[in-house]
Amino acid sequence: MRISELSAKSGVAIPTIKYYLREGMLHQGEQTAATRAEYDETHLRRLRMIRALLEVGRLSVASIKQVIAAVEDESLPVRQVLGTAHYALSPAVEPEPGEEWRSARAMVDDLIDELGWDVTESAPTRDELAQTIVRMRQLGVPVDLRPYVEAARRLVAEVELNTIPFDGPRDAAVEAMVLGTVLYGRALDTLRRMAHESESARRLGV
Amino acid sequence: MRISELSAKSGVAIPTIKYYLREGMLHQGEQTAATRAEYDETHLRRLRMIRALLEVGRLSVASIKQVIAAVEDESLPVRQVLGTAHYALSPAVEPEPGEEWRSARAMVDDLIDELGWDVTESAPTRDELAQTIVRMRQLGVPVDLRPYVEAARRLVAEVELNTIPFDGPRDAAVEAMVLGTVLYGRALDTLRRMAHESESARRLGV
Repeated sequence: MRISELSAKSGVAIPTIKYYLREGMLHQGEQTAATRAEYDETHLRRLRMIRALLEVGRLSVASIKQVIAAVEDESLPVRQVLGTAHYALSPAVEPEPGEEWRSARAMVDDLIDELGWDVTESAPTRDELAQTIVRMRQLGVPVDLRPYVEAARRLVAEVELNTIPFDGPRDAAVEAMVLGTVLYGRALDTLRRMAHESESARRLGV
Repeated sequence: MRISELSAKSGVAIPTIKYYLREGMLHQGEQTAATRAEYDETHLRRLRMIRALLEVGRLSVASIKQVIAAVEDESLPVRQVLGTAHYALSPAVEPEPGEEWRSARAMVDDLIDELGWDVTESAPTRDELAQTIVRMRQLGVPVDLRPYVEAARRLVAEVELNTIPFDGPRDAAVEAMVLGTVLYGRALDTLRRMAHESESARRLGV
């Protein structure tokens, strides 16, 4: 298909598609004339993935570039590719000086040990959770994470991981992992806010 | 306390505090001299809340202003105040033309009907979930939301709503609702990504 059709089908404007091509986020089409290239379903799929990560995942273009580089790098061991993609999905969090931070981070490390979870020492999710715990404590929000651990564990083990083709080609596995993390994550967050609205209306008796 | 102490305790820079004062996001201190004002624990708490919404909730300053206006508006019925706060927490989503969108939005409306959830017709969460479903379908991610509905329902009804003092002063209830939505939401999302890392490492046998 021509770039105009690719734009219509993906909902991504032509100048934006050209930007993704220049930045290497989208592979080049097949050049059929000096100023004309043909695109196919792989281009459409990649554009839909970028759009999902931008709009649904609210990732930055820089993070999306990292994710795509991880999907495409065939020289890395799979675990490292998944790790890179995972870490690109995590917001950057600066550790803060002081005892509040140290204590929250120790709580996170202890939790992961107790659960026996295989999360690397350098995973940015550790600092991300520590930051949330610091804020909870400062604001008097009860820090009882067990129901959240249980819900996360069950959804990932019983649903999400089963949508990932671990025995297929590597880029398909990484792409499925990234899309699952972002799309199911957003669905869950939205459903939680809906349940909040519904349940608080009920408790207020209105 | 002086503004310098308020800054040190909250971790918010003095020029930023002055900006929040000008914008009405933080109430004025007690003027003790022409160029000096005294602040108290209510100012510290408000700054910590703004910081949590910015850094943990990734809300925009415009959304935070809406949330604070809802917390402070004593003329509105409680349900409306909670609604305004809820809606400020939801990202703006543009409905898209075409059948894919209509079908996804109908699926959302049917789901809410079946569940008997009390979610208003104009709740932005309906379009937000529709957008996620459109992307899932386009990208071949299975759209089975039942486990997510169940997890969301249980966490909200059995944990989060119990942290909200519905019988106390209204601003305390709204503040607790907002903080709970944002902080537990972030904790759950981070734990899901940790579980993803751990479980995929296990399935890859590394």
